[in-house]
Amino acid sequence: MTADLIIRNARPFGGPVEDLFIRDGRYVAADRVHAAVEIDAAGHIALPGFVEAHTHLDKTLIGMDWFENRVGPTRNDRILADRNAKRELGIDARRQSARQIMQTLAFGVLSIRSHVDVDTEIGIANIEGVLETREALGDLVDVQIVAFPQSGMLPRAGTLELMDAALKTGADIVGGIDPASIERDPVRHLDTIFALADRHGKPVDIHLHEPGDLGAFCLELIVERTRALSLQGRVMVSHAYCLGTLDTSRQAGLIDQLAAERIAVMTVGSPSAPALPLRLMRRSGLTVASGSDGIQGTWEPYGNGDMLERARYLAQRNGMANDADLEDVARICTFGGAEGIGLGGYGLCEGCFADLVLVPARTLAEAVALTPQGRTVIRRGRVVVKGGEPAGDLPTIE
Amino acid sequence: MTADLIIRNARPFGGPVEDLFIRDGRYVAADRVHAAVEIDAAGHIALPGFVEAHTHLDKTLIGMDWFENRVGPTRNDRILADRNAKRELGIDARRQSARQIMQTLAFGVLSIRSHVDVDTEIGIANIEGVLETREALGDLVDVQIVAFPQSGMLPRAGTLELMDAALKTGADIVGGIDPASIERDPVRHLDTIFALADRHGKPVDIHLHEPGDLGAFCLELIVERTRALSLQGRVMVSHAYCLGTLDTSRQAGLIDQLAAERIAVMTVGSPSAPALPLRLMRRSGLTVASGSDGIQGTWEPYGNGDMLERARYLAQRNGMANDADLEDVARICTFGGAEGIGLGGYGLCEGCFADLVLVPARTLAEAVALTPQGRTVIRRGRVVVKGGEPAGDLPTIE
Repeated sequence: MTADLIIRNARPFGGPVEDLFIRDGRYVAADRVHAAVEIDAAGHIALPGFVEAHTHLDKTLIGMDWFENRVGPTRNDRILADRNAKRELGIDARRQSARQIMQTLAFGVLSIRSHVDVDTEIGIANIEGVLETREALGDLVDVQIVAFPQSGMLPRAGTLELMDAALKTGADIVGGIDPASIERDPVRHLDTIFALADRHGKPVDIHLHEPGDLGAFCLELIVERTRALSLQGRVMVSHAYCLGTLDTSRQAGLIDQLAAERIAVMTVGSPSAPALPLRLMRRSGLTVASGSDGIQGTWEPYGNGDMLERARYLAQRNGMANDADLEDVARICTFGGAEGIGLGGYGLCEGCFADLVLVPARTLAEAVALTPQGRTVIRRGRVVVKGGEPAGDLPTIE
Repeated sequence: MTADLIIRNARPFGGPVEDLFIRDGRYVAADRVHAAVEIDAAGHIALPGFVEAHTHLDKTLIGMDWFENRVGPTRNDRILADRNAKRELGIDARRQSARQIMQTLAFGVLSIRSHVDVDTEIGIANIEGVLETREALGDLVDVQIVAFPQSGMLPRAGTLELMDAALKTGADIVGGIDPASIERDPVRHLDTIFALADRHGKPVDIHLHEPGDLGAFCLELIVERTRALSLQGRVMVSHAYCLGTLDTSRQAGLIDQLAAERIAVMTVGSPSAPALPLRLMRRSGLTVASGSDGIQGTWEPYGNGDMLERARYLAQRNGMANDADLEDVARICTFGGAEGIGLGGYGLCEGCFADLVLVPARTLAEAVALTPQGRTVIRRGRVVVKGGEPAGDLPTIE
């Protein structure tokens, strides 16, 4: 049982200074805590734990030898290199997922949705590895596992059966992948993954890099299937680059359709991919989440998994400099992500889980712009990182 | 007189381990050093000091109160907000330039070209302020000062005379600004600044944000004037966004013309501005430099001035992930910048100034991808930053 906790002088979401009262891992009214431990937040910004809505925990190379990247430029080059690397480098999904989780814990990432590869070479071994990590680190972070057919599903016989096995084994979400450019049959791919979702009673999350009108057509197919199966609020489209390149009226029409079916969009704000129209998406009531995508992997060597830095990427990619815009991208990386991946009890209000991060900054906009480190991270009312350093008995990762 | 210095086990530009020998502030042959101090670089990557080829030292708000940005979206909104801020916030160019220089020294930035505002409100006070800083910190960093008519020159009577005064007072370079969208007369603006350069015998550096074909036309005018006045190797175009949006053949033609007149291009790799075709520019023999632009100012709250992080921005904006590409962007932020701003004695060879930074990384690509801190910085053979911390007697900045 964790002792009651009072956090003095925090500024929830950059607002006025307040004290936060925590009992049994949740925020409560002031008069409900007794004999509490107190910590002084010294006016730091209190944000609910960052939500990493899209990463690949099983494939980071954190802590491994430097991978010399000589991979060709196409998506298929990268998929092939990625599959070879899993075999040749011996990437251990259990160990690597734990390393990434512990690294991002220090940034205040307390909820993670990870796509995890399922293919005919590794089978569901990566799913099993990340499940082990989730079990081991469940006190520190929530992990959702997407069964992800990275190497393609329809073109590679046996993958569908493995997807089914992954979902039975404990994967939480059905993953899809470019229905046209990789799967070569958008209707059949989407029919197949939505049928899987329906049969298992699980949500859907689709990697959609398809460009322009091809991507728009795929979005329409996704909207139709979400409506037909009443999966409102349980479908996410990851990347959705097409939204960044369509003409304005088509863009707005699609965004409205997505919002109507409560289909969330996840964008990483990639500097080299089309910029999504963030302001329009948010003002249209679309749920927008964000993520790091793969960090330090064979696709790209970049990334540290800091979702506050990710908020900055989103703002910079959209040419935002105003404080109000910077506050809004902070919302995407917290509340937007929580809604997008369907977290319960999320927030800074009474009754919510006391999962939070204290960021040393004068304003929320400054926190986004300069992404200061030295944060304090609290999980279910327990201080797990203090001023950037592990606190208490955190597990050691090999 | 600094003692001779031997740096053991450094890896120049990520190559094999070598020892570097330094006497009188320059690299020399092994047998020329005597009774030297030795330091062990422990296999860290040795890079020549980073070159910040484009910033605004006089306008950073580092160390000042948080500036709540409510500025409108146009360039003119920003110019106006910027001019008001100088007056209302009392930005002290001398103090602020010193703060930025000391901050970026820890990253290994040892050469800086700064645009410095000249306008009818502040006159040449900012030039004088940065000149004072340059004098005070000359042992630590080279500073080039561009007299920059941020608020416009032709439309604001008296500015041209102030530009002339700035150049007489010590500014090194004639700055230009969007000849069409701000100056409203591309030919007369460029004729005027090239005439100033010719009369003072000084180089030219032109902010060129003009888009598409308008920008291309301005580039042609710049090429013509560079040729006519034999200013090859002494002209830089900053930003040159138009190169990122023209069709391929026009793009290639302009790049060839710029390369032929040895006109350098400076790009910051902004995530929200058009991406310049870096590979084509480099392969065409164009000199490409990079910079941070304004950091933590009224235009944008972002930036720390780390030119290694800037190399990463360039790579990410261009969708680069290969080690070879990452090594090339490191060249842009070192040798490219040095050539672009015309530094003598730059490099890691015998005879060059011993201005270098040791970056703790396994490969140069890793240094770019993950931009590790804890660097050691050596200026003219003197250790000024050790493992990220100031070393020796560095001046205190208020």
